[in-house]
Amino acid sequence: MIKVGIIGATGYAGSELINILLNHKDVELTYLGSHSYAGKKLTDIYPFFEKRIDIVLSDDSIENASDACDVVFLALPHSIASKVVTEEILKKCVVIDLGADFRLHSKDVYEKWYKTEHHNEKLLSSAVYALPEIHRESIKGARLIANPGCYTTCSILTLYPLVKNHLIDLDSIVIDAKSGTTGAGRGEKVQNLFCEVNESIKPYGLVTHRHIPEIEQELSIAANEQIVVEFTPHLVPMQRGILATCYAKVKDNVSEEDIKNAYLDSYNDEEFIRLVSYVPETSFVRGSNFVDIYYKYNSRTNRVIAVGAIDNLVKGAAGQAVQNMNIVFGFNEDEGLNRSSGV
Amino acid sequence: MIKVGIIGATGYAGSELINILLNHKDVELTYLGSHSYAGKKLTDIYPFFEKRIDIVLSDDSIENASDACDVVFLALPHSIASKVVTEEILKKCVVIDLGADFRLHSKDVYEKWYKTEHHNEKLLSSAVYALPEIHRESIKGARLIANPGCYTTCSILTLYPLVKNHLIDLDSIVIDAKSGTTGAGRGEKVQNLFCEVNESIKPYGLVTHRHIPEIEQELSIAANEQIVVEFTPHLVPMQRGILATCYAKVKDNVSEEDIKNAYLDSYNDEEFIRLVSYVPETSFVRGSNFVDIYYKYNSRTNRVIAVGAIDNLVKGAAGQAVQNMNIVFGFNEDEGLNRSSGV
Amino acid sequence: MIKVGIIGATGYAGSELINILLNHKDVELTYLGSHSYAGKKLTDIYPFFEKRIDIVLSDDSIENASDACDVVFLALPHSIASKVVTEEILKKCVVIDLGADFRLHSKDVYEKWYKTEHHNEKLLSSAVYALPEIHRESIKGARLIANPGCYTTCSILTLYPLVKNHLIDLDSIVIDAKSGTTGAGRGEKVQNLFCEVNESIKPYGLVTHRHIPEIEQELSIAANEQIVVEFTPHLVPMQRGILATCYAKVKDNVSEEDIKNAYLDSYNDEEFIRLVSYVPETSFVRGSNFVDIYYKYNSRTNRVIAVGAIDNLVKGAAGQAVQNMNIVFGFNEDEGLNRSSGV
Amino acid sequence: MIKVGIIGATGYAGSELINILLNHKDVELTYLGSHSYAGKKLTDIYPFFEKRIDIVLSDDSIENASDACDVVFLALPHSIASKVVTEEILKKCVVIDLGADFRLHSKDVYEKWYKTEHHNEKLLSSAVYALPEIHRESIKGARLIANPGCYTTCSILTLYPLVKNHLIDLDSIVIDAKSGTTGAGRGEKVQNLFCEVNESIKPYGLVTHRHIPEIEQELSIAANEQIVVEFTPHLVPMQRGILATCYAKVKDNVSEEDIKNAYLDSYNDEEFIRLVSYVPETSFVRGSNFVDIYYKYNSRTNRVIAVGAIDNLVKGAAGQAVQNMNIVFGFNEDEGLNRSSGV
Repeated sequence: MIKVGIIGATGYAGSELINILLNHKDVELTYLGSHSYAGKKLTDIYPFFEKRIDIVLSDDSIENASDACDVVFLALPHSIASKVVTEEILKKCVVIDLGADFRLHSKDVYEKWYKTEHHNEKLLSSAVYALPEIHRESIKGARLIANPGCYTTCSILTLYPLVKNHLIDLDSIVIDAKSGTTGAGRGEKVQNLFCEVNESIKPYGLVTHRHIPEIEQELSIAANEQIVVEFTPHLVPMQRGILATCYAKVKDNVSEEDIKNAYLDSYNDEEFIRLVSYVPETSFVRGSNFVDIYYKYNSRTNRVIAVGAIDNLVKGAAGQAVQNMNIVFGFNEDEGLNRSSGV
Repeated sequence: MIKVGIIGATGYAGSELINILLNHKDVELTYLGSHSYAGKKLTDIYPFFEKRIDIVLSDDSIENASDACDVVFLALPHSIASKVVTEEILKKCVVIDLGADFRLHSKDVYEKWYKTEHHNEKLLSSAVYALPEIHRESIKGARLIANPGCYTTCSILTLYPLVKNHLIDLDSIVIDAKSGTTGAGRGEKVQNLFCEVNESIKPYGLVTHRHIPEIEQELSIAANEQIVVEFTPHLVPMQRGILATCYAKVKDNVSEEDIKNAYLDSYNDEEFIRLVSYVPETSFVRGSNFVDIYYKYNSRTNRVIAVGAIDNLVKGAAGQAVQNMNIVFGFNEDEGLNRSSGV
Repeated sequence: MIKVGIIGATGYAGSELINILLNHKDVELTYLGSHSYAGKKLTDIYPFFEKRIDIVLSDDSIENASDACDVVFLALPHSIASKVVTEEILKKCVVIDLGADFRLHSKDVYEKWYKTEHHNEKLLSSAVYALPEIHRESIKGARLIANPGCYTTCSILTLYPLVKNHLIDLDSIVIDAKSGTTGAGRGEKVQNLFCEVNESIKPYGLVTHRHIPEIEQELSIAANEQIVVEFTPHLVPMQRGILATCYAKVKDNVSEEDIKNAYLDSYNDEEFIRLVSYVPETSFVRGSNFVDIYYKYNSRTNRVIAVGAIDNLVKGAAGQAVQNMNIVFGFNEDEGLNRSSGV
Repeated sequence: MIKVGIIGATGYAGSELINILLNHKDVELTYLGSHSYAGKKLTDIYPFFEKRIDIVLSDDSIENASDACDVVFLALPHSIASKVVTEEILKKCVVIDLGADFRLHSKDVYEKWYKTEHHNEKLLSSAVYALPEIHRESIKGARLIANPGCYTTCSILTLYPLVKNHLIDLDSIVIDAKSGTTGAGRGEKVQNLFCEVNESIKPYGLVTHRHIPEIEQELSIAANEQIVVEFTPHLVPMQRGILATCYAKVKDNVSEEDIKNAYLDSYNDEEFIRLVSYVPETSFVRGSNFVDIYYKYNSRTNRVIAVGAIDNLVKGAAGQAVQNMNIVFGFNEDEGLNRSSGV
């Protein structure tokens, strides 16, 4: 039984972390920190936790959390984690950062896309980009876990077998992604209001979305070659779910069998990846840590269309963070994650 | 470890049963029967079960199910269960009927409201109306469990302390109930289409809804007096959840303290009932077996307004059925039910 | 052709006013005032007006608006209108106030329910409570129009024939109302976010909602007796629509025929009231100025259940305001209002 | 004043046609034919037409409709129109077919994609593919109007200036389209149920969707070269709206100025096309006949991303059909179409 802390517990990702960890047999929720609500009861913010956990929110000090806990999850706006995580903190506890600060290996790339200073370049090299299906071995001994972004988890996993096995033209990748609105966070903004989101779909962040360098970094490593991708996210009037529809030209002499084998080789033993014969729908993965992946070859255009679906708050955030914690601490990788929302 | 069967496994209640039981440590899902889909894989009907359960649907024979199982859940249209459940079946297995056939103690009342014949009056007397918070002791030894309806569970539990303690005028009860659309089932009807349900709210079944006699039966027993209630259900553009807003005139000389004590006396030890200080929202109970109950006294009108909220598929159907199974078989009452959908 | 101004043009009611008035053949939109967005283009706030109207938002000065216009609509938070509307203003233009400041005839009642000072008691007596189907004659010569609230329009019109004709017990009235989320306005609040509203229904403002005294005032006048009503509003995950489910005990010796005649007498000639044989759904009135009213007598409880449905932004706000303008200026009463959203 | 008939009046497109034509000053709705509901009142099927039109549905005979009307709209499943439209019919009335039967110039292409026989090849040459912004002149004298599909209208108009002006690599076009659920029709299918559509997004018809040859036909004509496109539609949990996110590689030596000029040249005088500076959202065009088009050049990938948005029932079906009727009969092109749903 380990002690767990969460800094930023009252955002949507934080609340999902709590929800998952309450059914995890190897952990004790010890420290829940909140910037805005310190001193209040968690149930004042999220009444659905009544009778499940009775806890007062602490301040958002990683110092205090790390004194009390074996692992601390950070669910913070970007640029804060790189300020507060230090080598001293990492001696006291494992840090699993759900934010972006330690995902990109290059300080320059981070600063270019996030348009803000990175405060701790040194830690970038010790952080592990923790997509378990690709980097499981590196995660095992890690002290600083960079939990991947939601769009990136879905996009990278969907394209990885194609890229790694050199089956597609690398300059032909188009990722058209769609997300539920929890992905936009709990901020009090007009654009997040029910009456603005409902009955509408829209693209946003065209050409500039910050998950682009993260996708490019990981696919470039897989390809062993620098890749630039087209990525366009869209906001969908639903709460949870990400669907990534990915397009790429297939290289000459690549067969459908090659594509099939690439996916099987990469994922056949992965318990959270389902290579499905049905066309994915985000509702099929809602509340679960699964990634549904489907692909189809178009002989008229010589493209492969690969479609991935995840729950953005689970495999795209809190679930994957718990999966990473399970790997780091040697728990069963699916502990706490064997669940689904059903209909 | 007991063996469990479900007849009618592919409706929404059936699928929620499977979803709950997959996380129940004391059961093995042995027999899933379906009228429409026998011979198909469960995952052909509900792909979200991929990698969670790999099973082919059997026919909908309770005979076969009862040979293989210790308990059989029935999730069938009304009037079928009263035909197929027999004393012989009940010797082989416990039957938990999620339908209406064994809920009403009177054959006449059943036939009047359901406008169809009841096929087994004899079993009516051995069936237990299984609202655990009210009838727990009777459930313990039962072989035939009549699992309460969704609206009725919410309405009865919300009003029960007021009625039992004679705090309200019995002819003044108005229940205005609202339900998500899973309550309407998976039938292929125009009225259930997305474009007909979305962006609209409507009442239905005015004066004639079949949950009325069920509510009246249970509240009359509690009051020890025949009660007639006003009950109007509404369809809400959401998937899950029931909210029952209940109104009644408070008797003379009844104080707010009396009301408070009545609720505490009835429910203080109930793990699934939350007497909440916040105003209930159905999202707070989504995916959980909780009943949130709130009440407010209006001194201007001398009425109490009591509001209850449940997830219609959990406490209103599959969750309560599992709770009842847990009671019958002596498992922890919350086994498999310690969960919530979160945000 | 008259000149029209709107103060508070960028709220949801204001934008609906613009939308309606753009198809009104007798008006010219001359002055659009906004507190928050003065100096910006209207289409920066509501892009859907592109190519329909090209106008820069003015400040929210009723002084300036009244200099330029024949009629000024106010769509403001309460307590502002009573400050800025003066007899001098009313000499220059007709004022149609969509807010609450001139709806209640009693300053005391206003101050008790709104918990703030009323700034102009004198104007209360010259203001007309402008529910055309009840007070059309008074509206004709009015200079200060108090446009009724959304819940109140629906509740009063649904109950009026029953009350006026003394068919029901006046202390038995329960109004259970449900509203779409545009009714909550465009404020940047957590409770209005998509992820908080969607997939949930909740009551709010129990016992204290400010539309209660407005309903009571008008029904008391109709009954010629002081009435106190039970009124509970609910928030529904949809954008538009109000449904009021109203319950009341029928008096002895009142027949169903009496009820029918009461509705026919009151509304048979009203073009915006539809006495319908189907059970109302809010989608049936979406985008229109119609009120759908249905009633059913319950012989078991001796109650009548009357159900009304409106579009809260049209008949519940902007549409009724235009209807009132049409009456004041002698235009066709349905000019600009002969429309519906369809499916 | 002309007389108008609709065959297939009770589908979603048919009902929207009625809704639009009721506000059209130059037409009289004379004949509403329905296969399933002949003999019933229109308001039995769509109650929201109460007090707007009182008409009994006729049978779905184009023969009868053409005897009574100057123009007949067909809103039928594919392969029926090609059977019932004849030269004799076209002598009696103008036919505007909202279905697919006369859109493709080639019988072979039709039969390959629709997997059914085409019954009247001869009429294919006299039918006009009626996208007014591209083929207005041909529409003017036409007797047989092939009204374009919903996805195709949005996709073609979004890409047309790029293709026509030879600014993009023709084999690089990817169209990722998203549609509201009215596009799936009113069929009683499990997949269209609220609880299956809500809170989910999914692709469908990958590689095989029947709007592909229609897009290819029109873009090929514009390019004067055979084009093959990648097109993937998605179903979104909303009622109305299509968003087409289109990707293409920009040719060498093409500047952003060239792209801008191409759009301006093509559309600057088009009243229903809005070249917008904001990123399109489907809610901005809801209820209107507008097409919102936005484009952005990505210098990192050398692609242009062009985004189009329409209301699938208006510009994507009924609205464009009325626009075409207006052109054929010489009415103002926007008569009946100057409207929007607002918030």
